[in-house]
Amino acid sequence: MTKVALLGPEGTYTHQAAEKHFEDLEPEFCSTIREVFESNVEVKLVPIENSLGGGVTDTIDLFREQDETITAEVVLPIEHALISDEESVEDIEKIVSHPQALAQCQDIISEHGWEEVESNSTADAVEGLETGEAALASEIAAKINSKNILKKSVQDRDTNVTRFLVLNEESRQEGKTSLILEPVEDRPGILHAMLSCFSGHEINLTHIQSRPTKEKLGEYYFYVEAQASGTQLEKAVTALETYGEVKNLGEYGEAERTK
Amino acid sequence: MTKVALLGPEGTYTHQAAEKHFEDLEPEFCSTIREVFESNVEVKLVPIENSLGGGVTDTIDLFREQDETITAEVVLPIEHALISDEESVEDIEKIVSHPQALAQCQDIISEHGWEEVESNSTADAVEGLETGEAALASEIAAKINSKNILKKSVQDRDTNVTRFLVLNEESRQEGKTSLILEPVEDRPGILHAMLSCFSGHEINLTHIQSRPTKEKLGEYYFYVEAQASGTQLEKAVTALETYGEVKNLGEYGEAERTK
Repeated sequence: MTKVALLGPEGTYTHQAAEKHFEDLEPEFCSTIREVFESNVEVKLVPIENSLGGGVTDTIDLFREQDETITAEVVLPIEHALISDEESVEDIEKIVSHPQALAQCQDIISEHGWEEVESNSTADAVEGLETGEAALASEIAAKINSKNILKKSVQDRDTNVTRFLVLNEESRQEGKTSLILEPVEDRPGILHAMLSCFSGHEINLTHIQSRPTKEKLGEYYFYVEAQASGTQLEKAVTALETYGEVKNLGEYGEAERTK
Repeated sequence: MTKVALLGPEGTYTHQAAEKHFEDLEPEFCSTIREVFESNVEVKLVPIENSLGGGVTDTIDLFREQDETITAEVVLPIEHALISDEESVEDIEKIVSHPQALAQCQDIISEHGWEEVESNSTADAVEGLETGEAALASEIAAKINSKNILKKSVQDRDTNVTRFLVLNEESRQEGKTSLILEPVEDRPGILHAMLSCFSGHEINLTHIQSRPTKEKLGEYYFYVEAQASGTQLEKAVTALETYGEVKNLGEYGEAERTK
């Protein structure tokens, strides 16, 4: 069994992502991303990016503050299942879920004319199901609560994907590296100069996110993911360090993008 | 009187920023940033960046979606005043405010050993004041509710500054331009290539923020603010358009940074 700290409650998409990555998962659910980072459980899983919401700023700020090592990434398409105690779609009158999930499944809802009911989380929706109701949630939530999955993947569009990072696992692959770049001077053009260190060494960036240093308006640090590791990356880091501080968050294998 | 749509309720820091910019303000309070953008009131004021929280993503996404013209910026240091019905600091036993404001004024709270009470907003805290209580809020909230300001600027550090943008005013200055950059191809190095168009024409960027296009994981557009306008900017835009779509959100004068 692998004990892993992750954002709860059980049955959410974070839980599903952990199940996808770890063969023998023993989850330790935390109530905030900060609690995950500060947990005594060595191995952790945190969300880093969603295709609709963008970068997860809490995770990025905690990477800057804490000392953890990224060892893998997990990409999970968010697919809502239609979950119920009922046995047939015809018996459904009300649809319950988190407002975001309801908004992402408008085609099937309007097709059947179901009444919408909002819940605090997709997992809560499944737990509180009553007669004539169905919930929109992850397949794992149906399994945990022993409910029926009436239909899989009922979302309108397949563009909702969340990416997670795994921290402090023993084994890891190579190929990608996450870095925090902190320019020492707040001068114009510094971002362009720092990006030159990657392009000069023919390194592709797959993600860049600016975050405030919280010291002064307009003063930012950058979280980047580079498609490089080993010697090639070291050269870029040496060049980057002439412009500011560089924190290496870890090297890991790139997950396959399913869409 | 200038009618202006802005985020409510009255007495918040957004309200104070509007009072700072408009001589004869007639505020029209909206309950979301989307409502501000969709208001029939021509002139609007929206938050764009906070020194602690970073870019205001709702505002940036709405700039991409809607057609509004930025005409000015307003920079407001967030200074919490100690507001009460009591006449003296000695009569205070409880301190009421939004959790963020309480967290930002820990020095004065622990010095006096006040009991902390959380409210939904800084404006709500002032409205609901009872005997022996003080609120942390904007000076304008004290004025609106006819309360005493026992002490101004009681926050621990002066690093909390919010920047706002004014839309659709008739007169405007020059110097700065906001752009939405939307790369046509999702290829590595595209951000570096687009930033070269600014550095090549000796234009400084004061702000850059990446936001998901909501189409595909890892596909981003960029909101940038450039210290340029007129012909110099036009040249950069012509170069930028060889890499993707460019939306000019408006030219405006740069506000003075007080810190």
